[in-house]
Amino acid sequence: MPRMIEDQVGAFVPGARVEVAGSAEGPLLGLDFAVKDLFDVAGAVTGYGNPDWARTHAAAAATAPVILALLQAGAHLRGKTKTVELAYGLTGENVWYGTPTNPAAPDRFPGGSSCGSAAAVAAGLVDFALGSDTGGSVRIPASYCGVFGIRPSWGAVNLTAACPLAPSFDTGGWMASSASILRRVGEVILPQGGEGALGPLLKVQEAWVNAVPQTATALVGALAGAEKVMGHALTINLAPEGLDTLFEHFRHAQAEEAWASLGAWVSAIRPALGPGVQERFAAAKATDPAKAAAGRAFREHFRQRARSLLAGGAVLIYPTSPIPAPKLDVSQDSMQAIRERTMGVTAIAGLAGLCEVTIPAARVDGVPVGLSLAAAPGRDRALLAVAERLAAQLRLPV
Amino acid sequence: MPRMIEDQVGAFVPGARVEVAGSAEGPLLGLDFAVKDLFDVAGAVTGYGNPDWARTHAAAAATAPVILALLQAGAHLRGKTKTVELAYGLTGENVWYGTPTNPAAPDRFPGGSSCGSAAAVAAGLVDFALGSDTGGSVRIPASYCGVFGIRPSWGAVNLTAACPLAPSFDTGGWMASSASILRRVGEVILPQGGEGALGPLLKVQEAWVNAVPQTATALVGALAGAEKVMGHALTINLAPEGLDTLFEHFRHAQAEEAWASLGAWVSAIRPALGPGVQERFAAAKATDPAKAAAGRAFREHFRQRARSLLAGGAVLIYPTSPIPAPKLDVSQDSMQAIRERTMGVTAIAGLAGLCEVTIPAARVDGVPVGLSLAAAPGRDRALLAVAERLAAQLRLPV
Repeated sequence: MPRMIEDQVGAFVPGARVEVAGSAEGPLLGLDFAVKDLFDVAGAVTGYGNPDWARTHAAAAATAPVILALLQAGAHLRGKTKTVELAYGLTGENVWYGTPTNPAAPDRFPGGSSCGSAAAVAAGLVDFALGSDTGGSVRIPASYCGVFGIRPSWGAVNLTAACPLAPSFDTGGWMASSASILRRVGEVILPQGGEGALGPLLKVQEAWVNAVPQTATALVGALAGAEKVMGHALTINLAPEGLDTLFEHFRHAQAEEAWASLGAWVSAIRPALGPGVQERFAAAKATDPAKAAAGRAFREHFRQRARSLLAGGAVLIYPTSPIPAPKLDVSQDSMQAIRERTMGVTAIAGLAGLCEVTIPAARVDGVPVGLSLAAAPGRDRALLAVAERLAAQLRLPV
Repeated sequence: MPRMIEDQVGAFVPGARVEVAGSAEGPLLGLDFAVKDLFDVAGAVTGYGNPDWARTHAAAAATAPVILALLQAGAHLRGKTKTVELAYGLTGENVWYGTPTNPAAPDRFPGGSSCGSAAAVAAGLVDFALGSDTGGSVRIPASYCGVFGIRPSWGAVNLTAACPLAPSFDTGGWMASSASILRRVGEVILPQGGEGALGPLLKVQEAWVNAVPQTATALVGALAGAEKVMGHALTINLAPEGLDTLFEHFRHAQAEEAWASLGAWVSAIRPALGPGVQERFAAAKATDPAKAAAGRAFREHFRQRARSLLAGGAVLIYPTSPIPAPKLDVSQDSMQAIRERTMGVTAIAGLAGLCEVTIPAARVDGVPVGLSLAAAPGRDRALLAVAERLAAQLRLPV
């Protein structure tokens, strides 16, 4: 369903006119989509959120296979969306191209790093949008902007011709305006298999306690709805080490990889980087190898624990983000505290390689908060089916 | 290692001289064992704890296959041990043959229904003893008497030529004086397979809360030991319906089956039954079919939940019994309350068909209390291996 796009929320990369018509038939016929500007589209420079990146990279020779699959399925590519520079940030801020407006809460951050994708879907500019999620970069903007989102199982979506951040954590995900579109996209780009009943529901106590009371309270009704769909939730204490420990290990392991992936370019080019991003790359360069090794060891340990627990089909349930989207004028110190508190939760699926769907289940003073369901690696399709049943139960867009 | 048996604790069925030498070689060579008097030994009447049963049944034509397997493995059968009448009781009381003495606490019940088997092992009369466990009948006497015990996965041990109580719950289990003997018996009579790493450890919150504080406190050190062996325990709320709900559903489903198995004999013979047993059979006869059906439906539901949760190798950990062995002069009302509180816990493995090992991990005022580990059906061998590692960690008999 082609339509004129007027980008009132600044979701798209300015000046980049990238539009590709999809096949005349296919399961996604009639759907418009956008892609985060870290996926290659042949003939266009992939900007990765940073002018120096764009300046130092040639136009892409080939379109990313995941985009080709969507086009072949009939979806229509409407453009490339903004990203936090090098995908290394959670607020969605981009000082070079302008931070997209959060359509659900214009005085607040859209969340990132897939900020433009979330804003484009939330504003109704497209039906779905590709993003990437290393440490929360699909889940957080989806939660902040009030749209459906999925971070697939690690490795489930082909990331060929997509810029890397920390490859052993990077996943290709997407946002959608409804649960059925979220699922239908998955049917095109996810591997076959992994269907079959999921359950029981495990309420991750640490993540509920970690959420501010308003978020937890707002999601109580949605939790009850999930219990109607999947049966009694069992409360579990999944991370007795504390979510802060998960965050710390995630952070060190990710930082080491981020430097391994991007450090050569950063060192050679000395790009201008926005606030926060600059500091994170400086910290990544200085990562203590012992801490990174400890992070990797902890990941193996936690991964084994989570996968054993979820092998039979159990599904974790918790607030996607402990705190609704922060206001645009939040202080740097507050933002850092929010980031740590948020990534303790996003690190659950990040460390263990789980698939996680976020559902725009509630609002706090009008600001969206997402509810997450996470399942064992490979159960993405079953999880998307459950999310659709839950959306129907909650009378959300199906 | 044949030895003269002087049965000071009244563990054996009086007057029944059943002794069979085992093979001259085999993995259990040198071990003496006894069998609960509901397993057939060719040429002897199986008494099932009740004189009228003994009077109305002929001598067994064949020895139970599980006993033959033990004999073939070199173990020496020393005799038949007392059982609660028709295996329908948890105290270990037998008014016809005398309640066995609890060697670990002579003023307290030995626990049942496999009372004689537990007492014989605890008194050092044999190295291990077969019992049966429908709703706790191996686990509770093992915990009360301070020995190792296992209720295997439902169906894992051949119950041919053993008297039934409620076949869809009945299992053939055993007690042993050490963790390695417990394991070695399993290697002879359990199906192949099910080895491989177990974890994580899941601390079943309801069962720890349900235990009296002295029991829970006494087991804290053993829980820490289990964490040293298997890693951090995650606390889980496994039965949000409440353990009393598990007990009620278990009770109704079991009662209906008990009457289906034994009602014809009870109606035809009108046997004299001891206190408690008499009432339980009257109640079984009067079971409301709707309640029994609800019990069966709940079992399916709970079984699915527990099996999904444990499919990847997770292990439940909780006090085997919430309360140490009750005193012999406990009131009927107190005993009923203890029974209900206990069976809410034993119903976890009972309903779900799990394997459960109990370890004599601690004492409360000198009276034993067991620590249970329970795993998915079929993981018996792996669970026995873990129990042996935990026993070593706790400096218990290995």
